[in-house]
Amino acid sequence: MAPRATLNEVAERAGVSLASTSRALHGSGASKAMVERVRAAAAELGYSPDAVGRSLRMRRTFQIAFAVADIGNQVYVEMMSAIHAVIAPYGYRVVVTTTGDTAESTTDLVRSLANGMVDGIVLSPLRMSDELVRAIHESAVPVVVIGRSLGAHGIDSVSTDSAGGIGQAVTHLLDIGRRRIAFLNGPLDTTPGEARQRGFDDAVAAPGFTAEHVDVEIAEDFTVAAGLASARTLIERNAAHGGLDAIVAANDLLAIGAMHAARQSGLDVPTDLAVTGMDDTEIGRVFHPSLTSVSLGSAERGRRAAQLLLGLVEGSDQETRHVDVGPTLLVRESTRPTDVLDGEKS
Amino acid sequence: MAPRATLNEVAERAGVSLASTSRALHGSGASKAMVERVRAAAAELGYSPDAVGRSLRMRRTFQIAFAVADIGNQVYVEMMSAIHAVIAPYGYRVVVTTTGDTAESTTDLVRSLANGMVDGIVLSPLRMSDELVRAIHESAVPVVVIGRSLGAHGIDSVSTDSAGGIGQAVTHLLDIGRRRIAFLNGPLDTTPGEARQRGFDDAVAAPGFTAEHVDVEIAEDFTVAAGLASARTLIERNAAHGGLDAIVAANDLLAIGAMHAARQSGLDVPTDLAVTGMDDTEIGRVFHPSLTSVSLGSAERGRRAAQLLLGLVEGSDQETRHVDVGPTLLVRESTRPTDVLDGEKS
Repeated sequence: MAPRATLNEVAERAGVSLASTSRALHGSGASKAMVERVRAAAAELGYSPDAVGRSLRMRRTFQIAFAVADIGNQVYVEMMSAIHAVIAPYGYRVVVTTTGDTAESTTDLVRSLANGMVDGIVLSPLRMSDELVRAIHESAVPVVVIGRSLGAHGIDSVSTDSAGGIGQAVTHLLDIGRRRIAFLNGPLDTTPGEARQRGFDDAVAAPGFTAEHVDVEIAEDFTVAAGLASARTLIERNAAHGGLDAIVAANDLLAIGAMHAARQSGLDVPTDLAVTGMDDTEIGRVFHPSLTSVSLGSAERGRRAAQLLLGLVEGSDQETRHVDVGPTLLVRESTRPTDVLDGEKS
Repeated sequence: MAPRATLNEVAERAGVSLASTSRALHGSGASKAMVERVRAAAAELGYSPDAVGRSLRMRRTFQIAFAVADIGNQVYVEMMSAIHAVIAPYGYRVVVTTTGDTAESTTDLVRSLANGMVDGIVLSPLRMSDELVRAIHESAVPVVVIGRSLGAHGIDSVSTDSAGGIGQAVTHLLDIGRRRIAFLNGPLDTTPGEARQRGFDDAVAAPGFTAEHVDVEIAEDFTVAAGLASARTLIERNAAHGGLDAIVAANDLLAIGAMHAARQSGLDVPTDLAVTGMDDTEIGRVFHPSLTSVSLGSAERGRRAAQLLLGLVEGSDQETRHVDVGPTLLVRESTRPTDVLDGEKS
């Protein structure tokens, strides 16, 4: 990313920190001497005059919003730390806010934040709509979306193949001999719900799918409480006719709810019921049993989104970009009958 | 709180939502017709003219910052939801941001947020300093502190008796026959670390303290990873001379780390080692075994802090206030040897 390197060079030439350089170029929070020193360095190096001009025209807040559906989901905490690590050296701070559950509430949020509250937005919307796409286009500050590819709409975005990740979980369960598999998903009209359902449906339709019995339950949302309630429904519904031997959950919170439900029904995880999650959160790693989960590279997605946004905020990145981060299955105790303790990082 | 009721009455009289009423009175984001309607209702009812006058003099952001040390700690998520529930009807949004670990980083945050980014701050600082108290006094926007009583400094605050809560945990462990008790605390120069250490020291010094052996370990911070590392140290250090039969952890995250460490050492919780946490987080409730924890009323503290802040933001609350929320011990499986599943809300 050329503009990054260039700001770095200005900072080096001026002999001051990146944060000071950024503030000095934006004319905010820097002494007059500092501004002169940094501008001189920028001039010497021919540092992107457009970006500087643009920054000088507007007042910077040095705040970047990270807008997510559920602050209680650790996957967002990991993304936030990664975003912070990218933007803090440039003098920016992350503020986290909730989009609410609907496309409408998310649209309202974008419209309100874009009104001078922040310098840029990393947006992880649960639900998309044409209206939301329009709000992103009309936003006075740059927006990068984590969730699905929006390149066709000219919006920078970072996505992951969560459908393929669900496929990896199903394949693993078949490999360890599970034949009665249920999918515990969140709402289908959400970006993750839609993609993960597609992943499960594709896995079931694939030639290698040798399970005898399949069931699907849609939880109210992607939380532990919803996972507990829906897993109870799944376990009860299937108990009469042969039961289940595996649950693929659409994220770690649903999986933790499912493990709690299994336990309340007297089922041992993984002996009676194998459970997989998605997102590879810390709580899944230290849970008892530790949770097999599909990592969707949350830290990497946060990092890439922050880099894209920084390019836009600093005003020099014109091209629409899309980054895709691949899924990785991490096998732990919830699908591995064993008493041996693993050496997993926790 | 009189000004609250009055705004409600204005909204009722005008026949519009609280959010619309608030926005109309603040002259932001409301149609001319709405402003006239709401002002007429306010005039009829004699609604606090000072507050209205004050709001009209300054541009509102309709953002309230909730500044915490660790966004990954669910206790803050519960507080945030409670804050949101109080302020959303008045048209405000919560943005969450990190204070960092030090009093200096917290001071910087207050100074920067107070510079027009938000209309008020609910601050939960890990560490206090005179400089931070000064920054709060000098803040252009109201600040309410969750953590310790700052009434002596003229700062509105909400606290809890976490020292007494640790005492409740120790008493419970003695009651169930534990005699070799370790305290797993976080850094002693933090507000929670200092109070909880005092609680443990007081419990040990009390006449009813009949344990045979006591140990203390200070974790690097209040996270699962730190709890795991320090609990390993505790278990190893005491293994040679009789071991431990209980660990009192200073919060749920440390307790979850301790339960993971116990498991890695082949110790059954609670048979070999009883573990207590503090904060009553959802993850403790669904953990296996479910975690005995001291609730410090996180939702209640968030709610009370938001009410205090709203009084200050709306400009009518002049008196310094302090609210204290009491601790409650919730006994679950991690201190109760049983196979019977409890009916705990999860």
